[in-house]
Amino acid sequence: MTAPLHRPRPGTPDTQQAMRRRNLSRVLHTVAAEGPLSRAAVAQHIGLTRAAVSTLVDELTRAGFLEELGPQRPGGVGRPGTALTVSGRGPAGLGAEVGVDHLAVCAVDLRGAVRARAQRRVDNRGRAPKPVLAELTLLVRQVSAEAQAMGLRPAGLAVAVPGLVGRDTRTVVRAPNLDWHDTDVATLLPSDVPLTVDNEANFGALAELWLADGAPADFLHVSAEIGIGAALVVDGQLLRGTRGFAGELGHVPVRPEGPACPCGGRGCLEQYAGEGAVLRAAGIAPGPDRVSLLAERAAAGDATTRKALRGAGTALGIALTGAVNLLDPRAVVLGGALSRLAPWLLPPLEKELNRRRAAPADGVLVSGLGPDGPLLGAAHSVVRGVLDDPVGAVG
Amino acid sequence: MTAPLHRPRPGTPDTQQAMRRRNLSRVLHTVAAEGPLSRAAVAQHIGLTRAAVSTLVDELTRAGFLEELGPQRPGGVGRPGTALTVSGRGPAGLGAEVGVDHLAVCAVDLRGAVRARAQRRVDNRGRAPKPVLAELTLLVRQVSAEAQAMGLRPAGLAVAVPGLVGRDTRTVVRAPNLDWHDTDVATLLPSDVPLTVDNEANFGALAELWLADGAPADFLHVSAEIGIGAALVVDGQLLRGTRGFAGELGHVPVRPEGPACPCGGRGCLEQYAGEGAVLRAAGIAPGPDRVSLLAERAAAGDATTRKALRGAGTALGIALTGAVNLLDPRAVVLGGALSRLAPWLLPPLEKELNRRRAAPADGVLVSGLGPDGPLLGAAHSVVRGVLDDPVGAVG
Repeated sequence: MTAPLHRPRPGTPDTQQAMRRRNLSRVLHTVAAEGPLSRAAVAQHIGLTRAAVSTLVDELTRAGFLEELGPQRPGGVGRPGTALTVSGRGPAGLGAEVGVDHLAVCAVDLRGAVRARAQRRVDNRGRAPKPVLAELTLLVRQVSAEAQAMGLRPAGLAVAVPGLVGRDTRTVVRAPNLDWHDTDVATLLPSDVPLTVDNEANFGALAELWLADGAPADFLHVSAEIGIGAALVVDGQLLRGTRGFAGELGHVPVRPEGPACPCGGRGCLEQYAGEGAVLRAAGIAPGPDRVSLLAERAAAGDATTRKALRGAGTALGIALTGAVNLLDPRAVVLGGALSRLAPWLLPPLEKELNRRRAAPADGVLVSGLGPDGPLLGAAHSVVRGVLDDPVGAVG
Repeated sequence: MTAPLHRPRPGTPDTQQAMRRRNLSRVLHTVAAEGPLSRAAVAQHIGLTRAAVSTLVDELTRAGFLEELGPQRPGGVGRPGTALTVSGRGPAGLGAEVGVDHLAVCAVDLRGAVRARAQRRVDNRGRAPKPVLAELTLLVRQVSAEAQAMGLRPAGLAVAVPGLVGRDTRTVVRAPNLDWHDTDVATLLPSDVPLTVDNEANFGALAELWLADGAPADFLHVSAEIGIGAALVVDGQLLRGTRGFAGELGHVPVRPEGPACPCGGRGCLEQYAGEGAVLRAAGIAPGPDRVSLLAERAAAGDATTRKALRGAGTALGIALTGAVNLLDPRAVVLGGALSRLAPWLLPPLEKELNRRRAAPADGVLVSGLGPDGPLLGAAHSVVRGVLDDPVGAVG
């Protein structure tokens, strides 16, 4: 049984209580990032006295966020400190993903380890929200039960969806490939933990930021499943836009009088580089997992497929020229399905950026997380929320 | 003579000293925005005790940031409080602008009033940095002396330039219309106060944010002198980009195979809506203050001029469709020279945004600050710096 952290009144101004709350988070973040660490090492890291840190550590240990591992470096000089680590049995983040072709759920502990996972291949195109989210809820309950059996306490559920999500983080405003519109998904999902819903490109970008080795803190993350989405990370923060709609790279005009797009525009990037357009150009009928088929044919040297991907890469390069000019990101990162097609998309894409003098400082990178990015980003967003404010995370 | 505020060591962690520093800023901001206010009213506004606020106020008064106006509302109930106001004799911000056709300098006090101002019409096209900045320095010294004669202490100098500025805030990386490249302007400007150099579009956007009635906290500010620049404000903060180059709207591709642009690209927005392109389309030779001539001819109903502006508005609409899709700003604001041409640019621009379903929530607005925006934004940036950290502003 853990002792809850004391929670101050909401809206408290910048006082001792607010300072304590921030310092609890700094201790927890430090141990999560650098641990195992002794109390003295934590004090040195964050520049507080050892006495102040001990009080904070005791509180976090009692509340189940930190664990003591026993003496550290017993061969060292002087009295050994007790090594601290974030708890492998404390709060956990639940992440879920509604894909066009699949559903997935995982639980991640404060150490960042995936402790439980479930997924199911299912064609969600045009399926109503209710049966899809009922099926997702079953997977959430299964993973949550597994996590609890390991002593973890789910601290929140974050759900990635392939569409625009309102700033209320619960309404899917538009998910064209599911055919969902203005859907309040919160009412159709478990209500026993705090819930956040966000665009899959946003969670994919956050996963890149938090999990990829050496990821820059400023980048434009471009991903695709059926449509093309992007997410902009600035100084380690997502830029969401006023209505939560930022990152609609797929509807940037590439050729202003080009083909009509279902969005109402003409010549949008999706008309050249969306899955539908690429499959049409490659002479492949739509269906599940067409990205694998495109990759296979391109790898086998099929000229039509390669030409289709070249056209998509060129269009991506034109749209990204505009984005790089507007945003000056350190890098562009290709994630999701695009990462699998990178060998064929990248050369024409970079050619356009270079001839238009719009190459970002660190160039165009390919995500190592692949299609798992959004799911991991969702689960880790809950974990980060706990590290950022352990007081607020106590139910 | 004023008593300097106590300055803690740099890099101090989140301690009493850091909290005091933030609370001094909160008191000063509150009085600047809402004053005159009694100590009790300040305490209520920021949620600290009256005793804590009194200590902070005394310190700010002794250091010359606040002034006491004498008893407030003498007819009220109870003992009257002393009304506080920010000082009209304390620190001041110096703003300067290097325009293609002019130089200007002003001094703004903590109350936001312009207290001294000097400007000169001069054709700076292709002039070397040294004589231009020597001339600007004379104007800075003149305005600074006037301000000091009124009891003001210049706390910093901010200089707006029509070009890209590095994140060091002193190097003009590229200012094509002046023909300056990689110019460290700090060495050519007065060194007796802290100096910041920034792009004119950035300062124009900040002026809009800070000075315009009801300005949103999220908007894309588009301005033009000769080239076309933009600045993005997100949650009340400028998005600068990794290298400080964000906002290059002028080089977003509008028609990817359009005319070659000096930047190295093709079909960039400036090839359709930059001053040179519009003058060419209108059959007007380049020269100083051509914007007035364009506005006069368009107002007189000249068909060629109107057609040229219609083409520019359409191209702006296409480029802004991409920007709105990527950034989801609350509004697009046309500032600088564009504000004077708005009656003719706005209809085709809005037509493009609407037919491509990319209208921002609050639509396209026209700045009321006109060509003064960048100069005012520069001076106010210094004033805001003082309000944000009065301890740091003490020389």
